[in-house]
Amino acid sequence: MDYRTRQNQLLQSEEISKCDVFLVTHLPNVRYLCGFTGSSGVLALAPSGSVFFTDGRYTEQARTEVAGARVVIVRKSPLAGVAEWLLRRAQRKSGLRVGIESEHLSVASRALLMRLLSPRLRLRNTAGVVERRRMVKDAEELARIRSAAKLGTSLLRAALPLVRPGTPETTLAAEMEYAARRGGAEEMSFPTIVAAGPRSALPHAHASANLVPRRGFVLFDFGVILAGYCSDMTRTVHVGRPTAEARRVYQAVLEAQLAAIAAVRPGVAVGEVDRAARNVLRGAGLARYFTHSTGHGVGLEIHEPPRVAAGQQERLQSGMVITVEPGVYLAKRGGVRIEDMVVVTGSGCEVLTSTSKELIVL
Amino acid sequence: MDYRTRQNQLLQSEEISKCDVFLVTHLPNVRYLCGFTGSSGVLALAPSGSVFFTDGRYTEQARTEVAGARVVIVRKSPLAGVAEWLLRRAQRKSGLRVGIESEHLSVASRALLMRLLSPRLRLRNTAGVVERRRMVKDAEELARIRSAAKLGTSLLRAALPLVRPGTPETTLAAEMEYAARRGGAEEMSFPTIVAAGPRSALPHAHASANLVPRRGFVLFDFGVILAGYCSDMTRTVHVGRPTAEARRVYQAVLEAQLAAIAAVRPGVAVGEVDRAARNVLRGAGLARYFTHSTGHGVGLEIHEPPRVAAGQQERLQSGMVITVEPGVYLAKRGGVRIEDMVVVTGSGCEVLTSTSKELIVL
Repeated sequence: MDYRTRQNQLLQSEEISKCDVFLVTHLPNVRYLCGFTGSSGVLALAPSGSVFFTDGRYTEQARTEVAGARVVIVRKSPLAGVAEWLLRRAQRKSGLRVGIESEHLSVASRALLMRLLSPRLRLRNTAGVVERRRMVKDAEELARIRSAAKLGTSLLRAALPLVRPGTPETTLAAEMEYAARRGGAEEMSFPTIVAAGPRSALPHAHASANLVPRRGFVLFDFGVILAGYCSDMTRTVHVGRPTAEARRVYQAVLEAQLAAIAAVRPGVAVGEVDRAARNVLRGAGLARYFTHSTGHGVGLEIHEPPRVAAGQQERLQSGMVITVEPGVYLAKRGGVRIEDMVVVTGSGCEVLTSTSKELIVL
Repeated sequence: MDYRTRQNQLLQSEEISKCDVFLVTHLPNVRYLCGFTGSSGVLALAPSGSVFFTDGRYTEQARTEVAGARVVIVRKSPLAGVAEWLLRRAQRKSGLRVGIESEHLSVASRALLMRLLSPRLRLRNTAGVVERRRMVKDAEELARIRSAAKLGTSLLRAALPLVRPGTPETTLAAEMEYAARRGGAEEMSFPTIVAAGPRSALPHAHASANLVPRRGFVLFDFGVILAGYCSDMTRTVHVGRPTAEARRVYQAVLEAQLAAIAAVRPGVAVGEVDRAARNVLRGAGLARYFTHSTGHGVGLEIHEPPRVAAGQQERLQSGMVITVEPGVYLAKRGGVRIEDMVVVTGSGCEVLTSTSKELIVL
């Protein structure tokens, strides 16, 4: 990854160019800008040269990973280390303007900075500056995302042979995660969702001790992290003979998902993608059971901008990677969600998690 | 869990009793106080009755899980929902004092609240109020932590048969995580650390494609989440015949760990536990290679107060659960860490992750 170029492009953005120093505290943003993958560190971005602060646990790791920034190992917290460094700079230039990531810095951390630095420095709130740049993936990022999506897509095969009445959800998750690890995944991109029977009506039901019933849906929502990048997909299968209602709900969700994918192309507002899915479900009388947004960006984080939700104006660009995942949830009965990751291309999109979406009955 | 009692005790604490409403935004604290396990929600704690705000994805789950609070499903974000509710209360009482968790609320979220609520309400920063209560575990929590520690302790057995030259670190992690899931774990409590050969000198090295060498240490740091509670332990084994230096380092770390465990009893400052470990390593001339603190609290979070670090004054109390995990890291050569979870008892402590700590040579 060319971290120096990313930093320079960011320094030229309108919001950052008004600051003398920009403090990057959100760890995925830190990783994006200098390569550090650990759990504690702050990057101080400055035109005169960036500095990365971390603690003694990461001495070796920072030296190996960090590029485009000088590494400083601090005795206290990285934030306190940054404050000392800023004070020294403020002695050379009073009224130093320091940009912070307001969505990621805590009220307590901001108060600490103010206590150490005021009145010699001024803090400026910024929001989503790095995240907006991260929305469009470069070639190396897309290659990693493709690899993650490919590994992720293979996992359902590990679970399907065990999907039968009486199998605990956690056993199915175990098989998928074991296959993920053996395929080289660093970790799962979120706690694997396996939701059987009535639990499939809970959109975010982590795998539990609940058993696969004799008859009903089993919903799998899962992803891996490979070389730092996340995958995300959902498939819903059925155990036993589906009722007419179950078939109808499944078909409506599938059509909604295909309509939303068909709406993805450069220049389209993400809200239009959401509307395409919602319109199909409205036609089927199911819109009120679609209780979440249609999708989200994926990359270094499992959820990142853009939000593919009703009314959102952000326009799709070639190189963005989003999920398309409408669902219908009928309380106490069951739910269906079908989700793919797609990359926006020059003329439309390409599905990265391509497997059959016809209803699988086991 | 008796959430209502926990809430009432918290409302009587000095910091909270000065507030009319206390906003709990840190999700582990939300879970501790009302049982909600999802990823989006705010608990507004008030003597007149608590209210929990979440979004449409969690309608069913909140109704099932939440106790001791009325559930409100919001269309926008939970924080915006709370703001509307607070405004209605402020119409009945001006100058409402609203406590926030300053370490967990972002600068942007605080600005949103101020914009919606000012000047009718006043925000008061608080820090660590719920976390301080969470340090001492009750009987039900201890039972869950024991179960998590027991499952966690069993995992190393799954990896040891595969520890031989040429095995990737990720394969060893795969076996441990597979065993965890089959044992019912909801997820791992953090990305499993498997660090072979020179990588064992990186205290936080997640399992990678790196291979077990012909000769050197392999460090395993791992834990599970079971019924919401975390386990955490570390063992270091050696492949091939250890050098005299390797044996000496291992023995010093083991003695440091045993000395720290021997120092754990009610009334002792946590800094003394850290000192006990550090003194042993100083005697062995290895103190400068022990680059992190001796331990931390464990419970709903893998890292929670108290910090068992140099100079920390917090006094141990019966029912606290902490880790004891000194380590020595020799850059480019390798590292050793040995970690147990212990619960503070009436007269000392009990090790919850009890397996042999003699050097295993494979």
